[in-house]
Amino acid sequence: MSYQIAVLAGDGIGPEVMAEARKVLAEVEARFDLNIEYSEYDVGGIAIDNHGCPLPDATLKGCEAADAILFGSVGGPKWEHLPPNEQPERGALLPLRGHFELFCNLRPARLHTGLEHMSPLRADISAQGFDVLCVRELTGGIYFGKPKGRQGEGEEEEAFDTMRYSRREIRRIAKIAFEAARGRRGKVTSVDKANVLACSVLWREVVEEVAKDFPDVTLEHIYIDNATMQLLRRPFDFDVMLCSNLFGDILSDEIAMLTGSMGLLSSASMNGSGFGLYEPAGGSAPDIAGKGIANPIAQILSAALMLRHSLKQEEAAACIERAVGAALEAGFLTGELLSADQRHNAKSTKEMGDFIANAI
Amino acid sequence: MSYQIAVLAGDGIGPEVMAEARKVLAEVEARFDLNIEYSEYDVGGIAIDNHGCPLPDATLKGCEAADAILFGSVGGPKWEHLPPNEQPERGALLPLRGHFELFCNLRPARLHTGLEHMSPLRADISAQGFDVLCVRELTGGIYFGKPKGRQGEGEEEEAFDTMRYSRREIRRIAKIAFEAARGRRGKVTSVDKANVLACSVLWREVVEEVAKDFPDVTLEHIYIDNATMQLLRRPFDFDVMLCSNLFGDILSDEIAMLTGSMGLLSSASMNGSGFGLYEPAGGSAPDIAGKGIANPIAQILSAALMLRHSLKQEEAAACIERAVGAALEAGFLTGELLSADQRHNAKSTKEMGDFIANAI
Ligand SMILES: CC(C)[C@H](C(=O)O)[C@@H](O)C(=O)O
Ligand SMILES: CC(C)[C@H](C(=O)O)[C@@H](O)C(=O)O
Repeated sequence: MSYQIAVLAGDGIGPEVMAEARKVLAEVEARFDLNIEYSEYDVGGIAIDNHGCPLPDATLKGCEAADAILFGSVGGPKWEHLPPNEQPERGALLPLRGHFELFCNLRPARLHTGLEHMSPLRADISAQGFDVLCVRELTGGIYFGKPKGRQGEGEEEEAFDTMRYSRREIRRIAKIAFEAARGRRGKVTSVDKANVLACSVLWREVVEEVAKDFPDVTLEHIYIDNATMQLLRRPFDFDVMLCSNLFGDILSDEIAMLTGSMGLLSSASMNGSGFGLYEPAGGSAPDIAGKGIANPIAQILSAALMLRHSLKQEEAAACIERAVGAALEAGFLTGELLSADQRHNAKSTKEMGDFIANAI
Repeated sequence: MSYQIAVLAGDGIGPEVMAEARKVLAEVEARFDLNIEYSEYDVGGIAIDNHGCPLPDATLKGCEAADAILFGSVGGPKWEHLPPNEQPERGALLPLRGHFELFCNLRPARLHTGLEHMSPLRADISAQGFDVLCVRELTGGIYFGKPKGRQGEGEEEEAFDTMRYSRREIRRIAKIAFEAARGRRGKVTSVDKANVLACSVLWREVVEEVAKDFPDVTLEHIYIDNATMQLLRRPFDFDVMLCSNLFGDILSDEIAMLTGSMGLLSSASMNGSGFGLYEPAGGSAPDIAGKGIANPIAQILSAALMLRHSLKQEEAAACIERAVGAALEAGFLTGELLSADQRHNAKSTKEMGDFIANAI
């Protein structure tokens, strides 16, 4: 099988962790007899520097010609003075999501055995572990709803945004959550604010309809304010969390932080035709960029998600995930996952990539 | 001085904790020579049962005639089958906020010395304590923005909500946050999503303008998704958090849960003329209602906030707060604040009320 991948390494630690993901992919190609071609494009801050905008035409064209996008991370202090919507993150990610209609964002997060101490949660809570899949709607809601803008003058000048969801949009993301729950612990928690938002009332209605086709899956509804609270007390009670765009943004980040190991978390943003963008959940970490100490695992797991969801190479994906698991179980860890007194055992970005590539 | 207070005890533990707040207020009246008249009205579930709606006209009229509203809590399983916007909480609180233009919601939350173990945070984080004041805009944004509704048919039927903020609305709440910071640790963290929302871009602009009048206060901006994360790692770094209606709803609940002792948290919702609604941050706790074990402190502290903000009786307010502090320091605690092996020392709702009333 032969595939085209657009590689958008971006800024900060992006290029160095991407190099390790490529190393692991090379092993996977050999072992599973895949033929993957890579084309690299600028995105984010480096694209602003080289081409004057965070998502140049050439990059977009390259992505259009590909089967999937392997994305690094974007942003850094150099571009923070720019107006919010010209900044690397927003200026690259939102247009890519919109252009390719990447409506489905999967953000898996679990507390790995042996890494419980990384969680900011109390020991007796983190000891119980957790494994949550956040299914976030990514091209609707208040992110893209029109009208959005300003009107009026003086002190009465006002800004407005529109949150908007159709039955169709809610149904397609809800189905994905229920299907995912089937392959997991069989529970969907739908997050909304139905006591305030008209969108949430419709959301609840449609989710209930979809649930009828999944009698084997348990459905519960929770308000977003309560969800942020319950995740702190009993994260282990949640399996799949189904969220609108804005609530998923907030909740998936809360959950990511609850693992305490952002360097292990990847995310998939997909459309209805198998095309997708795969990226680490953490940021570009400019403070540690270029030092060779960043954890490449999130990027490597993003490649696994790409193999699974866009390239339909489940075995190759699972093989990468096993190799990553082997590193973690062996206590083969980058510095940020080690306590101060263990940090002399820290592995470098490259050592971690080598270990995982060898384990393929 | 003589005052009129509308007492809306509501459902669940509302009436029993309100009784203790009244007991404490009686002592305060005697000591500070205040003349407070109380009128009681139904609200929430009990109002649905007795009058067919969560906020009857008589209740609203009673509130109009008062100098402040002392609110208990509303809701319970009995009314959960109702459509979201007829339910006790939403059906009572939102109209009250709208009717009296209670735009300013103050939610103070701190980790009390000796109660660090209640926090769901890791011991080394909670050991550092925290003390955050959430200043939430309460009558604007997506809660009240028009248009809000549905249109279209079939799968294209869509629901929509409008988030809307004027300069005036942002300015008046921002000023309150900066003023509050002056009396605290001098830092305002303004929470927004300026990389996505037009409302947040205006929010940031106006907050920057207001900041110019408070050169002694430090201002920082943080995205809502990042705020939910940073609060887990370093809650002690925050002083005043300034939030829009929706973000404040989410964040104030996260912060409340981080204290692990919701039974201690009260909140004030005020308008521009000193009128306000004062209520515990926790819910009606139907599971423990009528058992005499609910913690009355949040309700008692709500009375203190009422004395301070609406009745301008700072000394009386501070006196209540000192009395509450004395109970906590003496380890005089209700059951939910004690570990299983200490629970035999638990004080009842009434014992707690008596202790605090005596300490006035
Ligand atoms: C950069 C920003 C627009 C984006 C979002 O809000 O979706 C980011 O926070 C994310 O979650 O991928
Ligand atoms: C009951 C609900 C409408 C309300 C809100 O969202 O404001 C509640 O969650 C609160 O925070 O007081």
